[in-house]
Amino acid sequence: MLSRNINSLLLVFQIFNNTTVMSQHKAFQDYYPDNFNHCYGCGGLNEHGHQLKSHWEGDIAVAKFEPKPYHTSLPGYVYGGLIASLIDCHSTGTAAAALYRAEGRELGSEPPFRCVTASLNVKYLRPCPLKGTLELKATVKEIDGKRVTILVDLYGVGEICAKGEVVAVAVGEKWVKRWIEGAAE
Amino acid sequence: MLSRNINSLLLVFQIFNNTTVMSQHKAFQDYYPDNFNHCYGCGGLNEHGHQLKSHWEGDIAVAKFEPKPYHTSLPGYVYGGLIASLIDCHSTGTAAAALYRAEGRELGSEPPFRCVTASLNVKYLRPCPLKGTLELKATVKEIDGKRVTILVDLYGVGEICAKGEVVAVAVGEKWVKRWIEGAAE
Repeated sequence: MLSRNINSLLLVFQIFNNTTVMSQHKAFQDYYPDNFNHCYGCGGLNEHGHQLKSHWEGDIAVAKFEPKPYHTSLPGYVYGGLIASLIDCHSTGTAAAALYRAEGRELGSEPPFRCVTASLNVKYLRPCPLKGTLELKATVKEIDGKRVTILVDLYGVGEICAKGEVVAVAVGEKWVKRWIEGAAE
Repeated sequence: MLSRNINSLLLVFQIFNNTTVMSQHKAFQDYYPDNFNHCYGCGGLNEHGHQLKSHWEGDIAVAKFEPKPYHTSLPGYVYGGLIASLIDCHSTGTAAAALYRAEGRELGSEPPFRCVTASLNVKYLRPCPLKGTLELKATVKEIDGKRVTILVDLYGVGEICAKGEVVAVAVGEKWVKRWIEGAAE
């Protein structure tokens, strides 16, 4: 009887533990609605793209990315356009996640938050080594209604190589549908 | 005799005309030194990359680019990271070309000008249709020693979709060699 109770307890613990681990690792982008999930930088439905994944670690949004050997600027260093792209997509994802947090809502709860980029500023501090994994760390600078300002530090081999500031704006389902239908005309 | 002279004249005219057309179409990036020509955005030696080409039309530097069908943000629209990348590479190329012009020198004359990006700012004005060719038009805002500020308008289907401002900095051969050798260590 004692053994059965311990086994049940262990089972409950395992389920709880797996759920926690899964929810820690499910990315902001995994909650994007399908019609918002084709972005070359971060859309899970874009098989050609970077499929960037971002998640919270406390109040910092973190993403990691492994550049391809051909993502070069100078030989041996990462192409600045890729750095800008990663900062952009990490920021729009973080902006959406920040809006859920600000309303005390679970990621992916209805209605969904989707953010597009109004402006992207990148300062390149030094050439970024094309070795191993790039790491992006973002914080929320400001939420002003639908406008969210995100600050991003991008690291290569543990050293900060670029700083970004992105203003992202939340857009509604009607806005998204109108543009998508407009493109199909 | 008259006929032979006319033929010679026609030949000279054809050679002159072809040279003019070729020099109009040889891009800024075609003059990059080999060790600066591997950029994913604009390096002629990067077979995986965009190979952006920029050239002068009067005082405006122009580049055109055909995005792939998978370079999407919203379905039917161009991925913002690609827009940022094109603005970046078009600007560094234009900055180098502007430095040659400011010194009254031919593109590609020695010593070569090579520019890297110090900062990149992009304002996204509207979703950019993923139809046909994107066009970039750049002007030189300021040359301050080695720092060149470039303004770029990016057009999709004839409509302005994004505006960029890039500060590019000219770097010397020693700087380039030092970084490339550092990466190989």
